[in-house]
Amino acid sequence: MVAQLEYTNRACVQAATRDEVSTYTFDRLSLQRGGLFGPVTLAYETWGELNAAGDNAVLITHALTGNSHAHDSSDPDNAKAAWWNPLIGPGRYFDTSRYFVICSNVLGGCLGSTGPASIDPRTGRAYGIRFPVVTIRDMVHAQRKLIAHLGVRELAMVAGGSIGGQQALEWAVTFPELVRNVAVVAATAAVTAQAIAFNEVGRQAIMSDPDWLCGDYASGQGPVTGLSIARMLAMITYQSEEAMELRFSRNPAQYELAPSPAFSPDLGGRFDVENYLYHQGETLTKRFDANSYLYLSRAMDLYDVSEGYSSLEAALARIRSKALFVGIRSDFLFPAAHVRWLADKVRALGGDAQYVEMDSPHGHDAFLKEWSQLAAALRHI
Amino acid sequence: MVAQLEYTNRACVQAATRDEVSTYTFDRLSLQRGGLFGPVTLAYETWGELNAAGDNAVLITHALTGNSHAHDSSDPDNAKAAWWNPLIGPGRYFDTSRYFVICSNVLGGCLGSTGPASIDPRTGRAYGIRFPVVTIRDMVHAQRKLIAHLGVRELAMVAGGSIGGQQALEWAVTFPELVRNVAVVAATAAVTAQAIAFNEVGRQAIMSDPDWLCGDYASGQGPVTGLSIARMLAMITYQSEEAMELRFSRNPAQYELAPSPAFSPDLGGRFDVENYLYHQGETLTKRFDANSYLYLSRAMDLYDVSEGYSSLEAALARIRSKALFVGIRSDFLFPAAHVRWLADKVRALGGDAQYVEMDSPHGHDAFLKEWSQLAAALRHI
Repeated sequence: MVAQLEYTNRACVQAATRDEVSTYTFDRLSLQRGGLFGPVTLAYETWGELNAAGDNAVLITHALTGNSHAHDSSDPDNAKAAWWNPLIGPGRYFDTSRYFVICSNVLGGCLGSTGPASIDPRTGRAYGIRFPVVTIRDMVHAQRKLIAHLGVRELAMVAGGSIGGQQALEWAVTFPELVRNVAVVAATAAVTAQAIAFNEVGRQAIMSDPDWLCGDYASGQGPVTGLSIARMLAMITYQSEEAMELRFSRNPAQYELAPSPAFSPDLGGRFDVENYLYHQGETLTKRFDANSYLYLSRAMDLYDVSEGYSSLEAALARIRSKALFVGIRSDFLFPAAHVRWLADKVRALGGDAQYVEMDSPHGHDAFLKEWSQLAAALRHI
Repeated sequence: MVAQLEYTNRACVQAATRDEVSTYTFDRLSLQRGGLFGPVTLAYETWGELNAAGDNAVLITHALTGNSHAHDSSDPDNAKAAWWNPLIGPGRYFDTSRYFVICSNVLGGCLGSTGPASIDPRTGRAYGIRFPVVTIRDMVHAQRKLIAHLGVRELAMVAGGSIGGQQALEWAVTFPELVRNVAVVAATAAVTAQAIAFNEVGRQAIMSDPDWLCGDYASGQGPVTGLSIARMLAMITYQSEEAMELRFSRNPAQYELAPSPAFSPDLGGRFDVENYLYHQGETLTKRFDANSYLYLSRAMDLYDVSEGYSSLEAALARIRSKALFVGIRSDFLFPAAHVRWLADKVRALGGDAQYVEMDSPHGHDAFLKEWSQLAAALRHI
């Protein structure tokens, strides 16, 4: 009886915390860096209804380790239940009573869509590092196939932050005729040398872990230590000196000690910030594939909106959408000044572009935390 | 004949690029975190002559991976021949025709002084992680023994940058009666949570390298990959977004390809900034011990000038030196605002403190690059 009750409860929890994840599979995709790749499956979720004209769809694009679960319709007031939960739902900014909201896991990901952990049908084995280099543009082309499959004829908006913002910008440039509005949050035309450098340190941590096995680790295993260390570093870049000082300062860790990724001797105690990073590292390893991390962080590095055009101006002049660019004052991964520069550039080229800056101490991650500021910023479009 | 010429040249180069490194060994040191440790050897170099009164000595304190070779008297115009070379010599800021300039490798280091790679005389084996946790204060107490041995009765100045600046500050607080002037460059009363976080990611990279062997690797071997990765990360924190953009931007690496620390597949080419970091990582592994890196980076984290005093004010009020604090506009490891805050605090407590800010894009490393600005800043004292 007890066992049955537990079972029932667990089933309820699953039903209560997950919207339905659907998949769409297509045969092949022509990749930006050459070659055809397929089959490709995209995992996606939708909220609201597509209208008869097929023009009330909103595409939400996720960040590096994100997934299709931007909203949780059964737990809509829990900000932790889905990554943009407070912004989506009836009466909210992304109003599901008016819009058909779509979010799909990116190509190269590991949360339902085809990525390095997927089985290569030609070999019966996971792709590993035989997976092709995929770009932000490839992710967008795959999303284009998905929305066509869903019957969408025009996107009322594409919106996302971080590499989701790169995707949103890429949508407006690649398919200007399909995007009425675009919101590019905490993203730029191309990342800085410093951002590439941070990403590469993280990748090196993964690839130097002996359990990486040149990418050929067994499913569910892999370079747990290396991925933890990569995540520790990434979490620093997602925050700010100011935010870490506010939250951790130089306080010692006092309870709920997380395991250190590597064996480590006592070198004078543990700071709270270290314990926090261990916890963040460990958490990611339970939900994310290390090879996907390599590919997606590389897609972030490689993204340059001007690639394939005669100039940056030629690329940005293609935008027909009403465009909103949102920077975050304390973001050092995608500096606000670069986001503003991009908005100014689009406007100088005749585009309908606005720039709004969020005055947050939370660094890059403010786009996943500062709900009222983010909603206020989005209302400019 | 050719062989002999080569040999002669090599000998000349050695003679021409190294001043004499001396050592001083003492039996024991009482450590800040408890216990007695010894014997302790400090490697040091001196330039100029100590006067009869023993009061014209200047102590130069080095940064994390630095050494005693602050000046090269046989190659004085080569900024790369010694780490503060352009500032030291006859007629220069640290005028060796007037001052007796001393620089010693820190306790815990691996460049001549006792550290984790030294042989523990009790066991005949290297200390490894059995080396005690040493602090900035311990380093200063060891230096105190060295200068007494050299006959120094009063220091005309203590000056250093980064953890050398932490040592300089600690000198002025711990031995106020011995320090007439102090120059604290790019250092603060205690590092930020963010700086601790970056350091810990580097340490995790070292400790997760299977060649670390819990610190018991053989002399000359060790966690080369992990130390390379730690250095890659540190080099990012020593520079700035602005400096990296100026130097590397998003340029591809084109020549003199350095080996990647880990085996890494081609994920869309190599950026110049990545190649630079690989090179920096590899270079450090040829001259630095990984265990020393763990201990010294930890000393940087642990440093809090107020430790052992009733308050920060109680510690800083001890300073009797004329004090100069130099911040660097683009430094995010030791933010200029924190250096300024420290100077203001000392002044508010009645100290003779000045703050000068270097307007450099080069980040923390400006104290090892911006010679004219640095000399101009130092002339305030």
